[in-house]
Amino acid sequence: MNLWFTENQTDNLRLSFRIKKLIDFRKSKFQSLAVYDTFEYGRLFTLDDFVMLTEKDEFVYHEMISHVALSCHPNPENILVIGGGDGGTIREIERHVRVNKITLVEIDKEVVDIAKKHLPFVACGFEDKRVDVFIEDGIEYIKNHKNEYDIIFIDSTDPVAFAEGLFRTDFYQFVFDALKEDGIMVAQTEYPFLKGDFIKQVYSSLKEVFPIVSPYLAFIPTYPTGMWSFAFASKKYHFINDLNPEFTKPFADRLKYYTPEIHKAAFALPPFIKKLID
Amino acid sequence: MNLWFTENQTDNLRLSFRIKKLIDFRKSKFQSLAVYDTFEYGRLFTLDDFVMLTEKDEFVYHEMISHVALSCHPNPENILVIGGGDGGTIREIERHVRVNKITLVEIDKEVVDIAKKHLPFVACGFEDKRVDVFIEDGIEYIKNHKNEYDIIFIDSTDPVAFAEGLFRTDFYQFVFDALKEDGIMVAQTEYPFLKGDFIKQVYSSLKEVFPIVSPYLAFIPTYPTGMWSFAFASKKYHFINDLNPEFTKPFADRLKYYTPEIHKAAFALPPFIKKLID
Repeated sequence: MNLWFTENQTDNLRLSFRIKKLIDFRKSKFQSLAVYDTFEYGRLFTLDDFVMLTEKDEFVYHEMISHVALSCHPNPENILVIGGGDGGTIREIERHVRVNKITLVEIDKEVVDIAKKHLPFVACGFEDKRVDVFIEDGIEYIKNHKNEYDIIFIDSTDPVAFAEGLFRTDFYQFVFDALKEDGIMVAQTEYPFLKGDFIKQVYSSLKEVFPIVSPYLAFIPTYPTGMWSFAFASKKYHFINDLNPEFTKPFADRLKYYTPEIHKAAFALPPFIKKLID
Repeated sequence: MNLWFTENQTDNLRLSFRIKKLIDFRKSKFQSLAVYDTFEYGRLFTLDDFVMLTEKDEFVYHEMISHVALSCHPNPENILVIGGGDGGTIREIERHVRVNKITLVEIDKEVVDIAKKHLPFVACGFEDKRVDVFIEDGIEYIKNHKNEYDIIFIDSTDPVAFAEGLFRTDFYQFVFDALKEDGIMVAQTEYPFLKGDFIKQVYSSLKEVFPIVSPYLAFIPTYPTGMWSFAFASKKYHFINDLNPEFTKPFADRLKYYTPEIHKAAFALPPFIKKLID
């Protein structure tokens, strides 16, 4: 058997995984969902044939989207996650005992369902009592919440179709308004090597809204180019000056990617990226 | 036309580039060589169908293999490069005016020839008067040189066939002996995400020979997993404590990846890698 899943990362670039088995395939109102078992990366979860996560490297994305902001905010009690329906991001947020309440707003119920059925290593995040899940459009949700959250995570798919609105200035303004006066937003912002123009536009939009904005980087092998960027956008706390290594210390031995040193290192930007955001 | 070059990164993982044109293909005594024009990454150079470099991202590899050690050594006058027949590494070394002499030892003359013909952006490195090129086996070459070089760069292909010997303890001992008493070696050491056992073995070998050893990391999109590791192995100078930002300052505006901040950040290792080398 020589079965492969191929992602068209761009029109001119493909990454292919050899597959042991197709585990599940379904179509929702929004997208097609699939779970495969791969030889190299364990379970693979795709939406519309784009890689969302694999069992073997999801730890990088989920540790890095969550612990950076949580290590800079002194009182992250009330957390909102837009997207992230697989559960991986909330799994990491839950490690912080300072967090009292986590609200996850996922547009597609099937994402939560397929994760609970086939991706227990991330969907374990749903078991915590601090978590409330709302199945609805994150953009609509956030419009109705003001001055409420300490940190908001935008754990979205790529900026196409229904997720496109999550990368616009007006959305960032809603996020800003939904945050308390010392709130932080973190969002995934794609891959700078091949999406320079997109990065330029997103960071220019973010800077219109937030006083403190910086990208940070992480190695994610199964995403295009392997170099992923996240936006740290903050009203008050600084991504380096306010980093408190104590906040991840209680569970440091359970992390595989994040450390306070990695946190600092992730904000060191190569000149070719600095150029895009200055 | 829908023409693709596919690299089998592992038995279970493939990266494919859409091709405008096959520019050159030849076979040498050692390997097959090809140059393609790709849509996404410009020119692509392969050996035995493995990606060696692309026009668009080679700057990361070449800046990071060279400037790290050159920024830690106060007097890097005499430099040896084993491999690196495309010229990219010596192009970067030449930026340092403190360097008086660069010896490049490449086993395969066809690599130098094909680069000079089709990869001018790296082969421009051969024009400098400080450069001597020897077409011979690097392992044999280094056995006959003792206490001679300030820095030795091992710019090799993957650890298969004739390059396998470049990752063994006995070779590292020859390198150690060929270095002056304050010399530094840098070597490319593959991708930790999928080659954990290899990394473990290489760093254990290096530590048998050198007192100061650390991996450092760089984002290289067209190499497997996008996360590449280099070994910094040194007799005296430390990779952070002896970093002098002045050494790259004169040409900092021409670098696209390396900065002194990136230098420090590259040595921040995720716990999953630390585990492999401790």
